[in-house]
Amino acid sequence: MSELRRDPIIGRWVIIAARRAERPVAVADREMEEDIDTKVCPFCPGNEHTTPPEVFAIRPSGGKQNSSGWLVRVVPNKYPALTIEGELNRQGLGMFDYMNGVGAHEVIIETPEHKAHLAGMPVSQIKLILLTYRERIVDLRGDKRFLYTLIFRNYKATAGATLPHPHSQLIAIAITPEIVKRELEAARRHFMEKQRCLFCDLLNQELKLGDRVVLETKHFVVLAPFAARFPYELHIYPKEHCHDFVLMNEEQFEDFAVTLKTILGCIRDVLCDPPYNYVLHTSPNPVPRPRRPEYWQTLEYDYHWHFEFIPRLTKVAGFEWGTGFYINPVPPELAANVLRQALSSRDTS
Amino acid sequence: MSELRRDPIIGRWVIIAARRAERPVAVADREMEEDIDTKVCPFCPGNEHTTPPEVFAIRPSGGKQNSSGWLVRVVPNKYPALTIEGELNRQGLGMFDYMNGVGAHEVIIETPEHKAHLAGMPVSQIKLILLTYRERIVDLRGDKRFLYTLIFRNYKATAGATLPHPHSQLIAIAITPEIVKRELEAARRHFMEKQRCLFCDLLNQELKLGDRVVLETKHFVVLAPFAARFPYELHIYPKEHCHDFVLMNEEQFEDFAVTLKTILGCIRDVLCDPPYNYVLHTSPNPVPRPRRPEYWQTLEYDYHWHFEFIPRLTKVAGFEWGTGFYINPVPPELAANVLRQALSSRDTS
Repeated sequence: MSELRRDPIIGRWVIIAARRAERPVAVADREMEEDIDTKVCPFCPGNEHTTPPEVFAIRPSGGKQNSSGWLVRVVPNKYPALTIEGELNRQGLGMFDYMNGVGAHEVIIETPEHKAHLAGMPVSQIKLILLTYRERIVDLRGDKRFLYTLIFRNYKATAGATLPHPHSQLIAIAITPEIVKRELEAARRHFMEKQRCLFCDLLNQELKLGDRVVLETKHFVVLAPFAARFPYELHIYPKEHCHDFVLMNEEQFEDFAVTLKTILGCIRDVLCDPPYNYVLHTSPNPVPRPRRPEYWQTLEYDYHWHFEFIPRLTKVAGFEWGTGFYINPVPPELAANVLRQALSSRDTS
Repeated sequence: MSELRRDPIIGRWVIIAARRAERPVAVADREMEEDIDTKVCPFCPGNEHTTPPEVFAIRPSGGKQNSSGWLVRVVPNKYPALTIEGELNRQGLGMFDYMNGVGAHEVIIETPEHKAHLAGMPVSQIKLILLTYRERIVDLRGDKRFLYTLIFRNYKATAGATLPHPHSQLIAIAITPEIVKRELEAARRHFMEKQRCLFCDLLNQELKLGDRVVLETKHFVVLAPFAARFPYELHIYPKEHCHDFVLMNEEQFEDFAVTLKTILGCIRDVLCDPPYNYVLHTSPNPVPRPRRPEYWQTLEYDYHWHFEFIPRLTKVAGFEWGTGFYINPVPPELAANVLRQALSSRDTS
């Protein structure tokens, strides 16, 4: 059973997932799975029996669970960092806070096609993937043990993927991730002070200045953030204030799928298909809590959902881990300019 | 000229170091230097002219600056993330805070021997390296533009090193690194509330529980921290309360050198000489500031210096970057136990 632990000094939570590596030697084992496409891929149609039973799938022509014929399929992670069964058990021991590792850890298999590239998929397929994200978030919010549902994608081994078949992952958990929490706190402070959304203010200024704007669509802005930690780090924000990803309408989902395809395709072309990670930052699960102060009861202005994209171009030089302090060799204005030019030459070609 | 920028949402500072990569293609260039030992190593004796002029060196038998005959040598980084010249210029633009990238970025060449391993060096040499850290921190504190001096070491290319010759690095800068700042704030809060050091309380509890203690010497404790983010992450704390690394006495420096050698040797043997990073966490520069509240004027109980060691055994799976939330497959109790056993079998062999 894994365990969630809180750092007694700075309060950061960590999953200690012992089951993923019973012995020290197992640390390196995960890399072995990369040569999987020469063997049998558990995410390919026909091999559904090799994964844990599916929790969701899109099968337009019907068909049985755990059979082929799906367009998107969601299964529990075979090597979960968390366990779905059991009551949440929060404990303390002196200065230490911990709880048992209850949570969901799922894999969203994005396509039946083993060799597909997310940027190369039709918009309709990308939209299905995004709708699957929504579906799983909404479903898992029904489970009151979890405070947050985290959607992320690791692309290529360098970025942490162990299988090449296109997939995203999901973790539903009893804490709110550190950075999201700090964003929430900052946004709440800003709203309490100014009765405005912090992120809306930021977008306003960025759209006015323009030099970090990579792309603007009807509903979205793609920014190279002002204090980007990594070269070509990009954030996608809905232009209209919205705290929660799942509240998007059909048109917005469509537009987001197009935006994502455009950006991922541009990054693939300009930076030679680099490894990357993306993470969805949306509001925590709206759990009513009796002891929350009044203003906590609505989350509406506490947050502005967005999407963070980090290509893995540079080696992280290590002291970043120890200090939380980053050196980025590519100014975001330069990154935005390069990508804007690439996008405009695409349009005209 | 590089620039320091503050994230307008969560307040994290980043160095945007444009000079390190004028063009996007340069991002990958840094990796090329790894085959340096087949060419001419700028850190080797005889090649002193290929580095910027030294700022410090230990030459027991005397000798001219920038000539050979040194045991430890400190030079400015040839590709600095910061520039040493110029006044600090703090600016704002709407929601954005930034300043010019004034700071020191130095390389501490730890030995004349190209192929030496830090764990294999004599204790006397490791002590010289540590005394050089102290020397540079004390010297740079004379420069009132800087708030913090950060010492770190990247070992092997995976951990961000670009040259194999043993070296550490130093950055002196006008901000306090994020994680150190959060530690300081937590320690200050704890002291204000309990009139005790937060870290001393933690050490007390850890020594009592014992299961995360890897090694205890006369003056130091090596811990696998309770909420370790990475497999075999280790922290070294002085047992007696002390906020500042430079305040150690000779005996403590000696003991720290022995402790460091022991731990690095044990890690090398048990984990097959993995890449790693270490970072020194010491108190910020004691700059008197007129508008600080009374209790800020002494930093003495605000902090407890320590040393953080992170081997790079697993690929960081990416969503860590986007969320600040980590999965560690090796429980720190297991890591501590493995290392304790390895240390005791060393003692008896």
